[in-house]
Amino acid sequence: MLTPQLDKQLPDGVADLFFNDAARKRAAERALADTFTRWGYAEIIPPMFEYYESLGAKAGPQLREEMYRFFDRDGRTLALRADFTIPIARIVGTKLFDRAMPLRFYAIGSVFRFKEPQAGVRREFTQAGIELIGANTADADAEAIALAMTALRALGLDDFRFTLGNAAYLQATLRDLALNAADDAALRDAIRRKNTAALAQLLAALNLDSTRHTALARLPTLWGNAEVLDRAICIDDDARAAIERLRAVVAQLAQFGLADCVTLDLAENRGMDYYTGILFEGFAQGLGFAVASGGRYDNLIAHFGHAIPAVGFAIGVERVMMLQRTRASVAPEVIAQTHSARIEDARARGRIVEVDVLNRAEDALRAYARVRGAREIWWRDGAIENV
Amino acid sequence: MLTPQLDKQLPDGVADLFFNDAARKRAAERALADTFTRWGYAEIIPPMFEYYESLGAKAGPQLREEMYRFFDRDGRTLALRADFTIPIARIVGTKLFDRAMPLRFYAIGSVFRFKEPQAGVRREFTQAGIELIGANTADADAEAIALAMTALRALGLDDFRFTLGNAAYLQATLRDLALNAADDAALRDAIRRKNTAALAQLLAALNLDSTRHTALARLPTLWGNAEVLDRAICIDDDARAAIERLRAVVAQLAQFGLADCVTLDLAENRGMDYYTGILFEGFAQGLGFAVASGGRYDNLIAHFGHAIPAVGFAIGVERVMMLQRTRASVAPEVIAQTHSARIEDARARGRIVEVDVLNRAEDALRAYARVRGAREIWWRDGAIENV
Repeated sequence: MLTPQLDKQLPDGVADLFFNDAARKRAAERALADTFTRWGYAEIIPPMFEYYESLGAKAGPQLREEMYRFFDRDGRTLALRADFTIPIARIVGTKLFDRAMPLRFYAIGSVFRFKEPQAGVRREFTQAGIELIGANTADADAEAIALAMTALRALGLDDFRFTLGNAAYLQATLRDLALNAADDAALRDAIRRKNTAALAQLLAALNLDSTRHTALARLPTLWGNAEVLDRAICIDDDARAAIERLRAVVAQLAQFGLADCVTLDLAENRGMDYYTGILFEGFAQGLGFAVASGGRYDNLIAHFGHAIPAVGFAIGVERVMMLQRTRASVAPEVIAQTHSARIEDARARGRIVEVDVLNRAEDALRAYARVRGAREIWWRDGAIENV
Repeated sequence: MLTPQLDKQLPDGVADLFFNDAARKRAAERALADTFTRWGYAEIIPPMFEYYESLGAKAGPQLREEMYRFFDRDGRTLALRADFTIPIARIVGTKLFDRAMPLRFYAIGSVFRFKEPQAGVRREFTQAGIELIGANTADADAEAIALAMTALRALGLDDFRFTLGNAAYLQATLRDLALNAADDAALRDAIRRKNTAALAQLLAALNLDSTRHTALARLPTLWGNAEVLDRAICIDDDARAAIERLRAVVAQLAQFGLADCVTLDLAENRGMDYYTGILFEGFAQGLGFAVASGGRYDNLIAHFGHAIPAVGFAIGVERVMMLQRTRASVAPEVIAQTHSARIEDARARGRIVEVDVLNRAEDALRAYARVRGAREIWWRDGAIENV
């Protein structure tokens, strides 16, 4: 079952997939891999677990807290991977930093995060994502967003909207304020939630110069189309650059015919702690949480050895599958009574042929073929019967 | 790297895969999934971890010892899956026992076993296997073996040999002897290693009736073609049934044209503790360890609730990849200077097109296209240049 049900055989948050659900998952993963490949992305496969010190160092407190940790027999702490971005950053920073840039990688597979028990919350879930490494340009940002949208379409999802912000704008606007952690968190939270009353109260207590005060107070209103970029108050060149980057990304997305799928939201500041530039989330009609999320992280790879800018995203495969109406057929086309050369030919041409291994009587084999949804029975004597 | 190298960034036995190695792994997994599908097998995806009490109960002491264990936050012990057979047995025994039989499942993915550090030993490795559930027949046994061979061929491996034994024969021959665990292990070990001197010494100390003594003493010589089945001494009906089962399996494999790839070996008794019938291993030219192994386990699913016979195998994907000479190309076909509708068309037709996101000058883009192995450059003005 895609959404974990009460299953006392299994820990909370993990699931057994079989029949249609497993076939749909494989079909989705293939469609995603094919899409990423056509855009020039090559697969990268990090280990399922590695040293916690590698995965945890730049993960931010929440993600770090959610990691599954255990001990190697030599006493070092290991952790199951909780996303792909951090291990890929490690690989690039330690092994691939001297390659021709940009590097384009995709990864598809399980990641693991401990979440409090709650209906439908998964602790093992499937991410499919890309990282575009070595290009800090609006073109790179736009490619990441356009590819996320194209990937959702490849999964049959057409009705989606992306929110797009830039972490650099808020970072610039808050710089040198020397807020304590609690105030910083409260301020970001009020901005993100567009809670203007709480924000006004917090700003009043901070004794800011009037430009900065207005810039921050206006933030909850800065969402919508590109017009919001004209209303953003820029307290310095970094803030201005962040706004101009968004303008360039939207212009580039218009080239893809995708600008209409984007809502700018300068108040957006959720997501991974390592984001330094644009950040985006994709929402689909009928689902209350994001099916895709990503952003630019220009300082993460440096932690592992070499400073290289990057942008990427991840799609939540199970989340998208909740919206798919497709069935991935797993019925055999043919039930054969016995092995024959004809079966080998048919399989070589891609047909699905099941051979009886229970020496069933004719009627029993007919009944089984109906249950399995097969279209033909091939009898021992060469006769073909439609089911 | 497929064979883990010294990599102080990573724990022993896990590896980063990228470029050609990752592409080859994905190609191998697709070829295996396609082959299994054509034989009527449907994918099943067990969780990456579940309760240790489920995975460990029937695993046998060695496999249990090799499991990676950790604690859930509610204090229960979890373990990473160490094979697919045990979780699939749990799923069938608890959820699918009332379905039309046989059930045919395949699974492909990572499994985890702690192994002592040693060059090339993996602790995370990829198994691709099938389980044929609900049929205790020679046809089912033969299908499992034939599919293992066909799967190896789908990966480009033609030069392989399978050993085939039957755990039931030795079990019958040793029944009611009431050996202590050490004697039992020493006897099985001497038989498996075909160490006739050690075996003679052990048998002399056991004070057996002469039929049983001869049956066991002869075991190390009972390997080769079907003629060995005539030389096996059967102390009871169970032993006789085990021999006749092997005869029927070999006859069935002859129908597939595959009997010549099999060496019978009645002394074979390695493998999983849960095997109750035929057991087999596939060896490839140039590799000192098995690339495939499997067997019949008629009592495992019963542990989880319902007694259902089954046979299955697993292929070690990384082991097979060590023998493959193929390269899976990951080069883009086209480097495009800028985004265009033509690119969308090309990608929709399956071509790999990379768009420059670094606004490179013409010469720099030409140099990059050469490094990446691209065949064409598509310039902004519509011109196409061969690289």
